[in-house]
Amino acid sequence: MEEIREEEFTIEGRNSVLEALRAGKPVDKILVQENCKDGPIQTILRECRKREIPVKMADRIRLDQKSSTGKHQGVIAYMAAYEYADVEDMLSLAATRGEPPFLFLLDGIEDPHNLGAIIRTANLAGAHGVIIPRNRAAGLTAAVARASAGALNYTPVARVTNLSRTMEELKKQGMWFACADMAGEILYRQNLTGALGLVIGNEGGGVGRLVKETCDYVVSIPMKGDIDSLNASVAAGVLAFEVVRQRMGMK
Amino acid sequence: MEEIREEEFTIEGRNSVLEALRAGKPVDKILVQENCKDGPIQTILRECRKREIPVKMADRIRLDQKSSTGKHQGVIAYMAAYEYADVEDMLSLAATRGEPPFLFLLDGIEDPHNLGAIIRTANLAGAHGVIIPRNRAAGLTAAVARASAGALNYTPVARVTNLSRTMEELKKQGMWFACADMAGEILYRQNLTGALGLVIGNEGGGVGRLVKETCDYVVSIPMKGDIDSLNASVAAGVLAFEVVRQRMGMK
Repeated sequence: MEEIREEEFTIEGRNSVLEALRAGKPVDKILVQENCKDGPIQTILRECRKREIPVKMADRIRLDQKSSTGKHQGVIAYMAAYEYADVEDMLSLAATRGEPPFLFLLDGIEDPHNLGAIIRTANLAGAHGVIIPRNRAAGLTAAVARASAGALNYTPVARVTNLSRTMEELKKQGMWFACADMAGEILYRQNLTGALGLVIGNEGGGVGRLVKETCDYVVSIPMKGDIDSLNASVAAGVLAFEVVRQRMGMK
Repeated sequence: MEEIREEEFTIEGRNSVLEALRAGKPVDKILVQENCKDGPIQTILRECRKREIPVKMADRIRLDQKSSTGKHQGVIAYMAAYEYADVEDMLSLAATRGEPPFLFLLDGIEDPHNLGAIIRTANLAGAHGVIIPRNRAAGLTAAVARASAGALNYTPVARVTNLSRTMEELKKQGMWFACADMAGEILYRQNLTGALGLVIGNEGGGVGRLVKETCDYVVSIPMKGDIDSLNASVAAGVLAFEVVRQRMGMK
């Protein structure tokens, strides 16, 4: 098992960041000082657009706070603790194992502990990968790696620009998608044994409208209590192991 | 819904702590300065023994760090964010609802987020209460209340000195106990519809030997991946909703 980095890994300064981008290093996001508009910064922004890397603007005070070298020159790059995979790799993995594809799609999980716990669950439920959106979601940081308890070393994670578009493409390859929502059919009554993508909603808002409309099934976890919803990583676990149960042919 | 306190609530100083203890306030634990052996401290220690409240010794520097008033006089009491319930209350709740008792027993959950998420799961799975040990486990702090997403307002939590002794007593009242372990019978093959206590192990070490020996069943969640175990709150969710599924009579 690879060593899990304990610290968030950053690269600071124009040349260093540009080098990292051009070398194709796994940059998670970039923080740029608002009033910096010179040539090197423009080149960095262009590289980010090309590679679809999220850019956040902030004022100088914020960059000074975030800087560990004190020489950020208006730009700090946050590196992913792990390399992202491609969605196609996941389908190949399923094919190699002779199993119908089983993927997790996370519609904006923001808490690193939840993201790590879900990747851990995906590994143990025998899923072939986890797909996360590029924006408004936690990336593969060191905290996520820790919470995944080593699962990030085995389970591929891909980052896509538009979750529902990726779902449409995967549908053409025979995949079906299920998300959880209170209004859905009781989980245990739905056949979940085929090529399946399990869609997990955001901690606060659940599954987005467009993504929900792209799903083939909406299933519900039966709720017997007084409060609204399970923790996102617990809900993912309940859904995932119902898939496992059905795939085992257990009645 | 009651307001959830955002801050850890502490009481400092000999008189204030002693008053809180004598008034029967829900004290979670007490921090006492190592070399303090005078009368008032002895009285506080005696009250703690009587009420089985955990006492931690620490040096003066540590108490100074933890003090918010600067006047701790060698003792700081940490208050529970919520009142603890009795195990008997849980059995009464089950009887009132006309349901076989369904309890969670947590064998040393240390992470407040996990404890909160498990109480949240217990509420939504229709469990009648959660039993935690008095020592070496997270108590009902403000962080736990937050992570429970309001469930602490509805689901009773009891604290006991010896988990396996409590299990023995509950067995005499007709309860059965199941814990999860890799070596157990596959979860889906075990009948979990009766009066049941679900035992969840500690994050690192799982279920302790004595508690495991006190269980009637050992069940296993089928693991298909590369790593060792699910996050404790996810495992609790998978176990709990298998109980829900079986109690719904779903095949």
